[in-house]
Amino acid sequence: MALPKRITIHELGPREGMQIEKNPVSTADKIRLVDRLSECNFHEIEVTSFVSPKWVPQMADAEEVVAGITRRPGTRYTGIYLNAQGIARAVKTGKLDVEGSLSVTASETFSKKNTNRSIEETLAEAERRIDVLKTMNVPTHEVSVMAAFGCNYEGNVDPQHVVRLVDRLIGTAADYGMDIGLIQLADTMGWGNPLSIRRLVGLVQDRWPDKRINLHLHDTRGLGLMNAFAAMEMGVDDFDAAVAGLGGCPYAGFKDAPGNIATEDLVHLCNEIGVETGVDLDRLVDVAREAEAIVGHPLPGKVMRGGILQSYRDRASSTSSTSSTSSKSSAVAL
Amino acid sequence: MALPKRITIHELGPREGMQIEKNPVSTADKIRLVDRLSECNFHEIEVTSFVSPKWVPQMADAEEVVAGITRRPGTRYTGIYLNAQGIARAVKTGKLDVEGSLSVTASETFSKKNTNRSIEETLAEAERRIDVLKTMNVPTHEVSVMAAFGCNYEGNVDPQHVVRLVDRLIGTAADYGMDIGLIQLADTMGWGNPLSIRRLVGLVQDRWPDKRINLHLHDTRGLGLMNAFAAMEMGVDDFDAAVAGLGGCPYAGFKDAPGNIATEDLVHLCNEIGVETGVDLDRLVDVAREAEAIVGHPLPGKVMRGGILQSYRDRASSTSSTSSTSSKSSAVAL
Repeated sequence: MALPKRITIHELGPREGMQIEKNPVSTADKIRLVDRLSECNFHEIEVTSFVSPKWVPQMADAEEVVAGITRRPGTRYTGIYLNAQGIARAVKTGKLDVEGSLSVTASETFSKKNTNRSIEETLAEAERRIDVLKTMNVPTHEVSVMAAFGCNYEGNVDPQHVVRLVDRLIGTAADYGMDIGLIQLADTMGWGNPLSIRRLVGLVQDRWPDKRINLHLHDTRGLGLMNAFAAMEMGVDDFDAAVAGLGGCPYAGFKDAPGNIATEDLVHLCNEIGVETGVDLDRLVDVAREAEAIVGHPLPGKVMRGGILQSYRDRASSTSSTSSTSSKSSAVAL
Repeated sequence: MALPKRITIHELGPREGMQIEKNPVSTADKIRLVDRLSECNFHEIEVTSFVSPKWVPQMADAEEVVAGITRRPGTRYTGIYLNAQGIARAVKTGKLDVEGSLSVTASETFSKKNTNRSIEETLAEAERRIDVLKTMNVPTHEVSVMAAFGCNYEGNVDPQHVVRLVDRLIGTAADYGMDIGLIQLADTMGWGNPLSIRRLVGLVQDRWPDKRINLHLHDTRGLGLMNAFAAMEMGVDDFDAAVAGLGGCPYAGFKDAPGNIATEDLVHLCNEIGVETGVDLDRLVDVAREAEAIVGHPLPGKVMRGGILQSYRDRASSTSSTSSTSSKSSAVAL
């Protein structure tokens, strides 16, 4: 299949990133990060999590952050939530595009560790969740499977198992008259590779040819961006990413394990291969550097260090190559 | 084309890495790095550069490093050199597998900056280089084109231009009765993407179907590993890499721009997709962490932070999943 003409990117940096940082990030910095990202023309920016401050103290200021940001027309501003209280908090801000999602984790162990529920309990709860979403008038068009490519606790995940989980979530939604348009496959712990991406995406496309697929890819072992490319070559056109690679992976066993694919690296790849994103890359690279300054340690994004190729092309075309001889060799490059 | 059953990896960390480090690395540490790499079962380890200490003071101890290492049977130990003096120094150590190579840079500006010679001057000099190699009995089966995918000074590089350069080098070699078996395409400044890799590799394969291709890939903008995968899917089975991503790029305009693809990330990818490398990944990841300690700053390799997937699989299969429930949720993972 050919590359898509255009992809949609969901920027998760403010939520994924701030949730894992050990040193507290000020509310003002969180607001600034969202506002700077707003200048880059994203389809969606995930602003914060409405979760219990007891479990995720970094997100205790969710309402303040939302109150402080300036919405840019054309961008959706979203949050995440695990339960009815969280949804109610998000709705109450009056300033977010609150969307529902039905999600399940493909790994039993990780499901219990991360949400305190088994897979079956999660699926059973989907009905109650739908009730809540309907009562609150929250539109819901997405189902999501986490750890869809593997799990640090359970190892490989069978792609057929993932398809069955998607099927059950879509079935439950249909029972309540909800039409699911988007299937998210999340590689939560960075287990995917281009071959396993093709296998699972292929199975899902075969089963639901009319639904859109979103990939949420972690770059835990350096394969995130190549997995995005492999998926794009299968026509997948909807991706999550986090500026500068904010996020990390709390489950990798190493405190500095890489998190989400870096948004600016994904946008740069797309620019190079002729896939539109609508995102302003020059501004985004500036925001990536600012994100590093905000968290106070290096982040994994590469283009912010290596430079945007288009800027080198622009400079090259404005310089005569004959004028740029050098009188001494500087180093031995290969 | 199918993935190769097996690839050959040339480990360049000791040479690429030590050449760019600002803080001096002790000769003892350089020797230790090579010796630790020797335990990982590489086909080749590039030990050092025989270049003028005036230009590259970090390499002034080339002879001492070679004298100090312990050769492991089955591994080739090589160095690089720009001229007859360098080759003579390498030969004189009596301890290296000295191999010749005819190389040229695809970018006129970069050729002058890096070697003080134009492309035509370099090609003309190839004849003298062959004389030297023959006189010193140095076997030569490789031609190499640097900046084959693009150049920070000149922008895009036309793949047909690269094919013409390869053709001229192979022609010159043939005139002197030298049979070239390997064509190296070096993405010196990280300009390649999977589409441009396929284009150039395809052209070279069409023109020289019987010759082997080596790719030397820099990860300056995060695409190095996906470029290796794209090339593997075209049957390319010979790659350079540097442990932990040692190396950096002195031409990127940012002092911490990523360098070569990280060897352990490449080996990990290969393990995951069923391509043999012969390299001991567990040991290599230990060496990657040691390389970070030696240079004293973080290096770009990811698997050393994210962990080897096989080790998670091994642990998962030795643990009952039912026993691993957790009494509290720790964070919200997606």
